[in-house]
Amino acid sequence: MDSRMQTYIDRLNQLDFHKMYEGDFFLTWEKTDEEIEAVFTVADALRAMRENNISTRIFDSGLGISLFRDNSTRTRFSFASACNLLGLEVQDLDEGKSQIAHGETIRETANMISFMADVIGIRDDMYIGKGNKYMHDVVDAVTDGHRQGVLEQKPTLVNLQCDIDHPTQCMADMLHVIHEFGGVENLKGKKIAMTWAYSPSYGKPLSVPQGVIGLMTRFGMDVVLAHPEGYEVMPEVEEVARANAGKSGGRFSKTHSMAEAFRDADIVYPKSWAPFAAMEKRTDLYGKGDTDGIRALEKELLAQNAQHKDWCCTEELMATTRGGKALYLHCLPADISGISCEEGEVAASVFDRYRTPLYKEASFKPYIIAAMIFLAKVKNPQATLKELEEKGNVRFHG
Amino acid sequence: MDSRMQTYIDRLNQLDFHKMYEGDFFLTWEKTDEEIEAVFTVADALRAMRENNISTRIFDSGLGISLFRDNSTRTRFSFASACNLLGLEVQDLDEGKSQIAHGETIRETANMISFMADVIGIRDDMYIGKGNKYMHDVVDAVTDGHRQGVLEQKPTLVNLQCDIDHPTQCMADMLHVIHEFGGVENLKGKKIAMTWAYSPSYGKPLSVPQGVIGLMTRFGMDVVLAHPEGYEVMPEVEEVARANAGKSGGRFSKTHSMAEAFRDADIVYPKSWAPFAAMEKRTDLYGKGDTDGIRALEKELLAQNAQHKDWCCTEELMATTRGGKALYLHCLPADISGISCEEGEVAASVFDRYRTPLYKEASFKPYIIAAMIFLAKVKNPQATLKELEEKGNVRFHG
Amino acid sequence: MDSRMQTYIDRLNQLDFHKMYEGDFFLTWEKTDEEIEAVFTVADALRAMRENNISTRIFDSGLGISLFRDNSTRTRFSFASACNLLGLEVQDLDEGKSQIAHGETIRETANMISFMADVIGIRDDMYIGKGNKYMHDVVDAVTDGHRQGVLEQKPTLVNLQCDIDHPTQCMADMLHVIHEFGGVENLKGKKIAMTWAYSPSYGKPLSVPQGVIGLMTRFGMDVVLAHPEGYEVMPEVEEVARANAGKSGGRFSKTHSMAEAFRDADIVYPKSWAPFAAMEKRTDLYGKGDTDGIRALEKELLAQNAQHKDWCCTEELMATTRGGKALYLHCLPADISGISCEEGEVAASVFDRYRTPLYKEASFKPYIIAAMIFLAKVKNPQATLKELEEKGNVRFHG
Repeated sequence: MDSRMQTYIDRLNQLDFHKMYEGDFFLTWEKTDEEIEAVFTVADALRAMRENNISTRIFDSGLGISLFRDNSTRTRFSFASACNLLGLEVQDLDEGKSQIAHGETIRETANMISFMADVIGIRDDMYIGKGNKYMHDVVDAVTDGHRQGVLEQKPTLVNLQCDIDHPTQCMADMLHVIHEFGGVENLKGKKIAMTWAYSPSYGKPLSVPQGVIGLMTRFGMDVVLAHPEGYEVMPEVEEVARANAGKSGGRFSKTHSMAEAFRDADIVYPKSWAPFAAMEKRTDLYGKGDTDGIRALEKELLAQNAQHKDWCCTEELMATTRGGKALYLHCLPADISGISCEEGEVAASVFDRYRTPLYKEASFKPYIIAAMIFLAKVKNPQATLKELEEKGNVRFHG
Repeated sequence: MDSRMQTYIDRLNQLDFHKMYEGDFFLTWEKTDEEIEAVFTVADALRAMRENNISTRIFDSGLGISLFRDNSTRTRFSFASACNLLGLEVQDLDEGKSQIAHGETIRETANMISFMADVIGIRDDMYIGKGNKYMHDVVDAVTDGHRQGVLEQKPTLVNLQCDIDHPTQCMADMLHVIHEFGGVENLKGKKIAMTWAYSPSYGKPLSVPQGVIGLMTRFGMDVVLAHPEGYEVMPEVEEVARANAGKSGGRFSKTHSMAEAFRDADIVYPKSWAPFAAMEKRTDLYGKGDTDGIRALEKELLAQNAQHKDWCCTEELMATTRGGKALYLHCLPADISGISCEEGEVAASVFDRYRTPLYKEASFKPYIIAAMIFLAKVKNPQATLKELEEKGNVRFHG
Repeated sequence: MDSRMQTYIDRLNQLDFHKMYEGDFFLTWEKTDEEIEAVFTVADALRAMRENNISTRIFDSGLGISLFRDNSTRTRFSFASACNLLGLEVQDLDEGKSQIAHGETIRETANMISFMADVIGIRDDMYIGKGNKYMHDVVDAVTDGHRQGVLEQKPTLVNLQCDIDHPTQCMADMLHVIHEFGGVENLKGKKIAMTWAYSPSYGKPLSVPQGVIGLMTRFGMDVVLAHPEGYEVMPEVEEVARANAGKSGGRFSKTHSMAEAFRDADIVYPKSWAPFAAMEKRTDLYGKGDTDGIRALEKELLAQNAQHKDWCCTEELMATTRGGKALYLHCLPADISGISCEEGEVAASVFDRYRTPLYKEASFKPYIIAAMIFLAKVKNPQATLKELEEKGNVRFHG
C-alpha cells in the first residue's frame, strides 16, 4: 500500500467520528475536533488515491442533488466533482423562488427529489435566519421520509454555504493552511487576520468570515477579526470563536484597524462583507416586499462602504506581515484593484503573487465535500479506503 | 436468491410480453393486461434489488434524453432516477418552442440527439391533439434513422405525460394501490372515485383523470368518474374505460355528484382539470396566436371553476367513504385549502393524514419508468434479472 | 478479434501521432496528415466497438466540461455523447457574458472548473479574433495550473467551433465522404464545391467553409470555393488551402459562379456565411457597444444577401454535377426553401433526397470528438483499443 494511505488510515484509527455516520454537515462547530480532523484526513486520502489513478467510486449508481439559490460556478463544480469522484451523478434542482414559500412544499419537494438521492448539497446564503433553517427543514423531511419507507436511503446533506457558515470553503481554506505550514502541529500561536476589505459591490455574505473565525480558532492560532465600525458579524458566531480559542489554547480578538490585524500576521484573509445588522434589515425588507426600502438600504450601504476604501490589501500592508510573507487567502473571486474594479479588496501585484497558492486553496474543496459525503455514508471508512487502495481499480485506463 | 426475486421471475415466466421488446410506451390501453402486469412486476423486482443494495445497471454507458415542454420537478427527477438506476446518463433537451414549428425539424432533431440515446422521455401535455402525436413523430424518426444505419440503436420512447394519458403517473398510482391492498387479486369490486376538485388555477391537464379511468378499469374495480357538468374528459378515453370495465368484470360509471362518488369508496382521487372542450378551444386559439381570445377563455374558465368551490375533499366527504378510511390518491402537488391556496382540492387535515401514503405513491414512479425501459431494451428480462441478482454487484460499496 | 479492429490497429501502427498525446485540438491544419488519419481511424474503431456492444469506457470517473457561448443542440449532444462513450460525465458551464470581460477571469475560471476535468469542449465562434484566442487562453491557464500542482491532470481542449475552424464538424464531414467513396484512396481528383448559398438569416459563422477548404484540400481533391463577390473568407485560411492543395497534389480554386462550382462536382457543400470583412466590422462594433452601428450593419448585410437569392442548391444545379448525383453535404440545420423559409440554401426535393446521407454525416461527429479525446489522453492507443476489444466488456447488458 502507498505509505501515505497507511498514515491516513492509522490516523483515522485514532479518531472518534462514529457519529458522522448517517449524519449531515451543517456547521463546523457542531462537529468535534476529531470529526473535523477525520474530514481533513479522508480528503487527503481521496486526493492521494486520485493522484495515484486509483478509483474512489463507492457508488455504482445514485444521484447527488444540487440546489443553489444563488449563482455559483466554483461551488457548483466542486460539488459536481466530489459527486463524480464517488460515482454519483449530479442533478440540479432549479427551484423557482415562489415554490419555497411555505414549509409544506419544502417537505414535499425534499422527498420527491430524493427517491434515489444519496446526497443533497444546498447553497442558500442570502437571508439571515433562513438558509441554515431551510437545510434543517430538508433534512427533517428526508429523515422522516426514510423512516416511513418512502425513501430507500436518507440522503446526506452538505451545507454548500448558508447564512451562518460556509463549511466546505473554510475547511478547504484550513486544509490548505495545514499543508502550507507542514501540518496542523505547526499552527499553534500563528497569527491569522480575518479582515474586512473594501469592495464596490454590496451585500456580500457573512458566511466566510463567520466560518473562518468559527473554525480557525480551534487550532491554537491567534485569530484576529478586523473590520470598520458597523461591520459586525453575528454575535453568536463570535461567541463560538471565543469559546474555541479558550479551549484550543489560542486567542480570538477584534480590532477596527486593518494595520493592526496585519502586523506580524502569518496568514491574512482580507475580504468584503455586509454588516450583519444590514443583512438582517434586508431580510426583513424582502419579507415585506419593500423594494423602495431595499433600494434605499443598498444606497446607504454603498455610501458606508465608500468611507472605507483604505481597507485594501496593499503591498505596504503585506510588508508588515511576518517577514513580509504572510500567506494570503481568499475564497475567490476577489475584487482586484485596477483589474476587476477600480478600487477593491486587494492590490493586483499582491493577488498575482499569490495566484498559485490561491488556486491550490480552492483545489481542496472538491475533496472536502467528498470526504464529508464519505464519512456520512461509509460505515467503516478505514476498511473501505484500504479496500479501494488494495483493489486498485484505475480511474483512468490508458 | 432473495425469495421475492424468485417470485417475480416466476410471475414473469407466466406472462406474455414479448412484444414490448424494442417497443415504446405511449398509452396504457395500447398494452395487454399481461404487459401491464410485467411492468408492475419488473418495477417491484428492481425496487427489491435496490433495497438489497444490488446494482441494476444494465448500461455501462448510454444516454437518456429528457424533453420537457412544461416545467416539471417530480417527473424530471423520476426520469433521471430511472435512467441512473439502469446506468444511463441524462441529457436534457431544452427545445425552444419556435424550433418545433414543422415536421422537418422534429425528424431532424430526433436523429441528431439520438446517436447514443437508449431512451427518450417526453412530456408534452399542453395541447390537445399534439403531445401524443409529437411522440409518435419522434419514434417514427428514430425508427427510420435506425433502419437507415444513422443510429446504432433505436431509442425507446417513454411517454412522461401527453395530452391523452400519463402512463408513468397512473401506473405508479396503481402499483401503490396494489401494494396498499395487498395484491391485485384484492381489488375486484373495490370502488374508486376519480373526481374533479376545485382549484384556483386554470387549465390543468386531462392526462391524469384520463389515464386513471383508462387504466384502473382493467382490474375489476368499480370506477366512478365524477365532475361538474361541462368538465367532460375526452370521449374516446371514456370509451376505453367502458370497454375495459366490461372485459375485466368491473364497472365504469359517471356522475355529477362528488358526494355520490365518495360514498363507500375504497379509493378517492380528487383532482382539478380543465374541460376537454375548453382545452381544445385553447389549442385552436394558440394555433391562431389569438392572445386576446386566450385571455378571455382563461377568465371564463376561472369563473366557471369558481362555481364549483364545493368540490373539495373535506373531512365530511372522507367520512362517507368505506369505513371513513378510503385511500386518498393524488399525483402532487395538490392545492391544499388554507395552505397552498385559500380554497383548493383538499382540506389540510385530510392531506396531512395521507402524507406518507402520498409520498409512497410517488416513490413508485422511478421504478415504473425503469421497468418500461427494461422491458423495451432487455431481450430476456427474467434471465437478466436473475443474472443481476446472482452476480450481486453492490450499488453502494461501504 | 473483430477483423475490422485488427485493420484499424495495423493502420495506427503505421502512423506517427505521438505528439497528440497530452495535446489539444484547435485547428486541423495544425495537425499532420498522419495525425488527421489517426483521428479518423480511432473514430472508426470506437464506432465498430459500439456496434459490437463493446464498452469503450476508459474513464471510471471524470468530468467533461462543455462551454457554449452560443446556442447549440447538435454539437452539445455530440460532445455529451462522446464524453459518455468514454466514461466522462458532462458538466455544462453557463458563463454569463459579463464574467469573461478580462483575462484575469478566464485564467481563474479555467482552473476552478478543472479540478476533475479530463476534457473541456468550447464553442466560441461569434467574434473574429476572439474564439480561438479564448481557447488558447484556457489551455494556457490549465497547463500552468497542472504544472503548478493545482490540477491533478491537464484537461484536453476540443475546439467545438471557433472563429477560424470547426474541426469536429469538418472531420465528421470528411469521414462521411471517405466512407461514401469507399476509402480515402478514391478521393484523388474528385471535385468538391464549397459554395456560398442564400439564407434569409444574418451573420452565419465562417468556420464551416474555412474548415472545409482547410481540411479537404489535403486529400488530393479538386476543391472549389464559390461565393458572390464580397463574401470572402479569411485570407489566411485560403493560404492554408492553397498550400495544402500544392502538397497533396490536388487543386484549390475560387469562383464567383455557383454554376461553375457545381459543374461535374462529385461533392457539393452549399451553405450560407457572412462576409469576413463584415464579421470583423461587427466584432469591432460589439467591442465599442455600438448597437446602432450593429443594427445598421445587419440591415446592410441582409440587403446584400438578398441580391444573391439565386445562390440556391436547386434540382437544376444538382443535375449539372457528376452524373447528376453529387454527394450533398451540410452541417445542418439547413435553410430549406419552402420548408424552413421562403427561399433558402437548398430546394426541398434535393434536401429530402439526401436526408439519410446527411444524418449519417452528422453521426460521425460524436466519434470524431471521442477520437480526439482518446488520442490526447491515451498513451498507447493501439494497446488500449486491443485491450478493450479483448476484454470485451459489454456496453449494454441484456
